Amino acid sequence: MNWKLALAYDGTDFHGWQIQPSHPTIQGELAAAIERVTGERVLPQGSGRTDAGVHALAQIASFDLNAPIPLENLQRALNRTLPAAIRVLSAEHVSPDFHARHCARVKTYEYRIFRAEICPPWLARYVYALNWPLNIDSMQQAAALIIGEHDFTSFAATDPDLSTRAPDPDASDPLDPDSRAGSIRTIYASSIVKEGELLVYRVRGNGFLHHMVRNLVGTFIDVGRGHIAPQDITDILAQRSRSAAGATAPARGLFLYSVEY
Amino acid sequence: MNWKLALAYDGTDFHGWQIQPSHPTIQGELAAAIERVTGERVLPQGSGRTDAGVHALAQIASFDLNAPIPLENLQRALNRTLPAAIRVLSAEHVSPDFHARHCARVKTYEYRIFRAEICPPWLARYVYALNWPLNIDSMQQAAALIIGEHDFTSFAATDPDLSTRAPDPDASDPLDPDSRAGSIRTIYASSIVKEGELLVYRVRGNGFLHHMVRNLVGTFIDVGRGHIAPQDITDILAQRSRSAAGATAPARGLFLYSVEY
Repeated sequence: MNWKLALAYDGTDFHGWQIQPSHPTIQGELAAAIERVTGERVLPQGSGRTDAGVHALAQIASFDLNAPIPLENLQRALNRTLPAAIRVLSAEHVSPDFHARHCARVKTYEYRIFRAEICPPWLARYVYALNWPLNIDSMQQAAALIIGEHDFTSFAATDPDLSTRAPDPDASDPLDPDSRAGSIRTIYASSIVKEGELLVYRVRGNGFLHHMVRNLVGTFIDVGRGHIAPQDITDILAQRSRSAAGATAPARGLFLYSVEY
Repeated sequence: MNWKLALAYDGTDFHGWQIQPSHPTIQGELAAAIERVTGERVLPQGSGRTDAGVHALAQIASFDLNAPIPLENLQRALNRTLPAAIRVLSAEHVSPDFHARHCARVKTYEYRIFRAEICPPWLARYVYALNWPLNIDSMQQAAALIIGEHDFTSFAATDPDLSTRAPDPDASDPLDPDSRAGSIRTIYASSIVKEGELLVYRVRGNGFLHHMVRNLVGTFIDVGRGHIAPQDITDILAQRSRSAAGATAPARGLFLYSVEY
């Protein structure tokens, strides 16, 4: 039976999604919980990796189990077994050809910046606290300029990181929106909204390069501080060089918001 | 110059308020931050201790500094130095005879129970997630029965804990509302309110024994589950025996809400 789970997690205390031998990871905790509940050792596939410290409002995972378990029972048993920082929001049976990563068509990420002088301790793990003056209108203009199909090389990690990651047989899967070859991605929506003391950046696209959202946010912050002009984004994209863009914003502000199939 | 600070903190990753040689504590972090900022080594006094895992919305601390530092500067410098889990909400100069613990007259605590099936990971550190059916009306009745002057021995930790605490020369200070001799305290308000998916218990009194709020909450939960009747609270108080009351609710749901002087 092929399973699809939606997961929320607080990534702060995990070394990212991908299973590692000696560090707690989301995939590792989920695999261990599934084994404790069902006795079966499987490797749940995520819609994509999230980095250390990155959170998820609705990460999607899929895996195949032999045991015929009722939907509600698996969800409840996993939530009893998993650490409180990882919750199974829903569980459903899906057709055998469903694969959380291969079938992902569109993803949305959210990045949260906290804008008041004192960030409450209970928000500190989930926002980038940034109390500098920021020109939000300029940031909005910059955010809109990435909508459409672009080569996002300037916003991709120059990834020594990738070579240190465990080998992934699917890494060049042409159907995987994040890992497919090339740096061209299509962004459908990209906007910044004020929500109380938060400044929230939401971006929806057919795939994202490693660190892409955090590098975009770092660059939009440069725009907001007046270090570069909004229209410079077009030039930064054209340069196709990581050094053209801004710094990588901290992982703690980033949430995988949703995955569409 | 005598200083009064209001502090908010996430107690999850600290071994309580009181300074310890080899574990991070709130008092220890604050003393270290004051020393880094001012060069002066002082031991800030809190309005009372909070246990490991207990949070504060507005703990009060006082200490004396020789250096004449402007108010805003000390607050900002401490917030830059302290971990993000501890924030200085305000700083003010107070008369030399102000002492955060000796002068505290009234304290309010809040205990948060989360009532939906799935507790979001970003709330898990700050609530007791409890999805059993609970009779809230019964819990309300029970909570109201502790208002007034009572001997709270039944709700006090039988404290092997106290003997393992570092000796405190002020521990029997008759002016300290928490540590003064005897188990008689006056409760001015005690009520349970529903706030969205939270059930919030707020209790205001002239002092609280060790574990008192958590033991009250554990007992109110027994009432809510129908294990005991609301009016049994009166009998439990009269027995003056810890074993008469319910279990100690987890530290993570408890917040020191305010201190009045």
